[in-house]
Amino acid sequence: MKVIIVGGVAGGASCAARLRRLDEKAEILMVERGPFVSYANCGLPYHVSGKIENESSLLVATEQMFKAVFAIDCRTNCEVIGISAKEKTVQLKNHVTGEVTTEKYDKLVLSPGAAPIRPPLPGIDLPGIFSVRTVADAKNIREWLDREIDRSVGNSFTGVDTVSKPRHAVVIGGGFIGLEMVENFVERGLSVTLVEKLNQVMPPLDPEMARLIERYLVKHNVQVELGDGVAGFRKAADGTLEVLTEKGKVHPADIVVSAIGVKPETELAKMADIEIGKRGGIRVNEHMITSNPDILAVGDAVEVKDFMTGEWTLIPLAGPANRQGRIAADVIAGRKSKFRGTQGTSICKLFGATIAQTGLSEKTLVRLGDKDYEKVYLYPNSHAGYYPGAKMLIIKFLFRKSDGKVLGAQILGEDGVPKRIDSFAMAIQMGCTIWDLEESELCYAPPYGSAKDPVNFAGMVAADVLNGDMPIVHWDSLGDSFLLDVRNPPELAVESIPGALNIPLPQLRARLSELPKDKEIAIICRSAQRAYYATRILLQNGFKAKNITGGMLARSHRAD
Amino acid sequence: MKVIIVGGVAGGASCAARLRRLDEKAEILMVERGPFVSYANCGLPYHVSGKIENESSLLVATEQMFKAVFAIDCRTNCEVIGISAKEKTVQLKNHVTGEVTTEKYDKLVLSPGAAPIRPPLPGIDLPGIFSVRTVADAKNIREWLDREIDRSVGNSFTGVDTVSKPRHAVVIGGGFIGLEMVENFVERGLSVTLVEKLNQVMPPLDPEMARLIERYLVKHNVQVELGDGVAGFRKAADGTLEVLTEKGKVHPADIVVSAIGVKPETELAKMADIEIGKRGGIRVNEHMITSNPDILAVGDAVEVKDFMTGEWTLIPLAGPANRQGRIAADVIAGRKSKFRGTQGTSICKLFGATIAQTGLSEKTLVRLGDKDYEKVYLYPNSHAGYYPGAKMLIIKFLFRKSDGKVLGAQILGEDGVPKRIDSFAMAIQMGCTIWDLEESELCYAPPYGSAKDPVNFAGMVAADVLNGDMPIVHWDSLGDSFLLDVRNPPELAVESIPGALNIPLPQLRARLSELPKDKEIAIICRSAQRAYYATRILLQNGFKAKNITGGMLARSHRAD
Repeated sequence: MKVIIVGGVAGGASCAARLRRLDEKAEILMVERGPFVSYANCGLPYHVSGKIENESSLLVATEQMFKAVFAIDCRTNCEVIGISAKEKTVQLKNHVTGEVTTEKYDKLVLSPGAAPIRPPLPGIDLPGIFSVRTVADAKNIREWLDREIDRSVGNSFTGVDTVSKPRHAVVIGGGFIGLEMVENFVERGLSVTLVEKLNQVMPPLDPEMARLIERYLVKHNVQVELGDGVAGFRKAADGTLEVLTEKGKVHPADIVVSAIGVKPETELAKMADIEIGKRGGIRVNEHMITSNPDILAVGDAVEVKDFMTGEWTLIPLAGPANRQGRIAADVIAGRKSKFRGTQGTSICKLFGATIAQTGLSEKTLVRLGDKDYEKVYLYPNSHAGYYPGAKMLIIKFLFRKSDGKVLGAQILGEDGVPKRIDSFAMAIQMGCTIWDLEESELCYAPPYGSAKDPVNFAGMVAADVLNGDMPIVHWDSLGDSFLLDVRNPPELAVESIPGALNIPLPQLRARLSELPKDKEIAIICRSAQRAYYATRILLQNGFKAKNITGGMLARSHRAD
Repeated sequence: MKVIIVGGVAGGASCAARLRRLDEKAEILMVERGPFVSYANCGLPYHVSGKIENESSLLVATEQMFKAVFAIDCRTNCEVIGISAKEKTVQLKNHVTGEVTTEKYDKLVLSPGAAPIRPPLPGIDLPGIFSVRTVADAKNIREWLDREIDRSVGNSFTGVDTVSKPRHAVVIGGGFIGLEMVENFVERGLSVTLVEKLNQVMPPLDPEMARLIERYLVKHNVQVELGDGVAGFRKAADGTLEVLTEKGKVHPADIVVSAIGVKPETELAKMADIEIGKRGGIRVNEHMITSNPDILAVGDAVEVKDFMTGEWTLIPLAGPANRQGRIAADVIAGRKSKFRGTQGTSICKLFGATIAQTGLSEKTLVRLGDKDYEKVYLYPNSHAGYYPGAKMLIIKFLFRKSDGKVLGAQILGEDGVPKRIDSFAMAIQMGCTIWDLEESELCYAPPYGSAKDPVNFAGMVAADVLNGDMPIVHWDSLGDSFLLDVRNPPELAVESIPGALNIPLPQLRARLSELPKDKEIAIICRSAQRAYYATRILLQNGFKAKNITGGMLARSHRAD
């Protein structure tokens, strides 16, 4: 059996290595159009700042290793320029020699990845505008940042320095790669403007969670421009760039990185005449087989099922790509392995903070017209508050009203985020309910957590809601509720809600007569904990009480 | 309804607060014999070193708060000196006034905790020998460490300093509290000897994992004395202490902490004539109800079911205590809440490292005579190796042979341990199989993990074993296997196995003729990854190949 694998990074490389392990006799040819196989594309932004200093660190495995260890015919700088699905052949072009050859396959695996979207805007091809996909991209960006720019033309009258290295970057797109590039430009000492067409950064998150990221960026001196698309680029008088926006703004830039998203590479799929899905990715079944039974496809180029929504989706992430590569190898070797789909787990470092998500977002639920959910906002410590270094975690937790199933979690924080998002991720994979989370036996010692871990806490709060112990209401749906603020006066001096009656919690039992029995009472405190206690007191005294979930903290970052 | 809760820390305090939330009308009396309720006993070791500087930080909630917020009659320095289960009364002694009163209850909740075991050894009551249970203990230790010791008697002939603060500590017992005390004494600048009667530290772990901890302690200049119990204590000539061991050793000490374990406090249970279990804890059902239907018990004083083994066990940990307190409150309020039992999740900081465990250990499986398990040793990076700061995780992973169920994990490392142990903990709670772990969608970005997370990796390796792709063997059961070492010669120069044939992996396919077809071949490499590749090559060429799980790394810390 001869297997040709097109694309030697993540999915392709995993597939090739796994296939050799399963089948010592298969003839395996892996071709990669670029100069490197198995490079760490997730590390590229960090190479720009020098956090990952050496290019060689990015090369996880080499062509040589694939040949020596796996007996794989591995060819770099080798591109597929034609596929005949009928004859089961591919045409290969060696970019070094220019030679074109034809190879027969029994099984073909496509792992071409996804290409950065490069909109056809005026000036898009000006020097100094980059994408971040390959090792060469990172190298080019580094070299560009090391250039001296002669600024004497543009600002000679200012009398300040006339020659300098790039000082200002514009990053277009506030998704994962955009934010990572922002961080790494800042690490290199550049001032950065982030331009995002949507009204929020990090589109998979809900907007009120993204607000916190935007604020955090501003705190790190990043200029955040939301709701404004790029209209074009031009050269400024001093030879640097200017980014022109749809709203008419002009952002000066010594360097521009475009990170507005990626698009599955489907050229090969079209050559092979296999089905493309509605999201623009190669359509595969759960065995990673395309519409042609002898052609499989994996990685960023394919559409996968979101097992939470049942929808086809694109997830250009390394984890699924690697697992899909293994599955494709299994299937070629005659096994029944299946890709189970995605649940949208992702994580991103941003300066000292971590942004992470798993499962469904509220915006997805709304888009699907699904009303069978509830949400709570939580602000627990990352570990026991009395042990030094605890940081607040900000958690949005979504669960199903009808059966208590865990639906999704979004977490921001400066400590302990990965631990919690993986607990939630595992919980979602295994169909956990909030009652399971309440009882989870997670690790606890003061440096790492709390006796009630934030994940337990999420389950407990949600259970209070679904058990009917704590009716909740959200800031955007207070209606004409009577507002009761149970904080202490010094807290109200900092910020208070107009029209809210203040009864500090310890006085509440003695002052019930001040509250209306006929109106819904929405209760306010800092994080909704004291308001929960107050809700319990009022409910048991015959009042119609509701807790405003997340309290003043949730109010502080609510979406407009 | 009147509820009396005995013990105002962890379980008792949780129960009291929860009960008030559920029942605004109940009369709740919480008594605590010590001066503080709701103090952070898990933080005490860190208060000794000053890592947690202020005693006040340890006081999570106060008597005043229980009164004001929860309308709970909270009494500190108040001890139960008698219980009449028949009359449903308790006798209380106020330690400040000396007054004794009798209170009636409808429901009684016992949360007395567990007391440090203080063996009746000669000299045990000498000043300078401490346990670590209460805020007062931590305070006494701190004060003792601040004393000046006159050393002129004992070592006047040395001519060195004759007066100094305590310089040498002996910690007895290498469990959680023992190790935390060792760390915090070292942090304070003391030299420390750790004496442990067993042949390993951290008894819940398997001995080969404990070896690593012992080595790590030695690296931090801790003198580790295993397999030697304490026989007694005496005063040295200079007034300091000497710890005498069963093996006849004498360890000088300016301070001694005894941390050999805790024993459930069952005085109250005996007064109430309720059942005590075989492990010495109060027997409760899943609703935390004792043998007397009006008496509940929670926390370190009770026995709980290990849901992995079905056995009764003692787990003096804060997480379960808090959850049990909530459950007891639920039950008193008429709800059907159940404690689901424990799965043995625990974590401990030790200098820069973290030690964590969940589920079954191999020693427990062996004790139960359970042979339906397999184990693998894994040494993955805590995050992508190309991103700075990655550290090796050392994982022992146990799974069921017959159905692939995840049984247990033990992890040591300096980065990323809590994240992984909680993923395993959640997996065990939800009945995950190794095939589920293979496909878990955990968070990945270079600073946090790898495209194949260590948790996925555990699943993948275990699946290779159970799918029959990778027969494994352990260092202690090699028998007369033919030994093949597939590492490169420079690695063998550092350490090699006598009698093993060396064929570096890239040469293996060309040198198959050097290997016996009739003998089992056990394959060696550093971490068992290359040996896995070699196993696949050999198996498919008709050899009887087995991978030595964990490779040379596992050998380096195997138990004797």
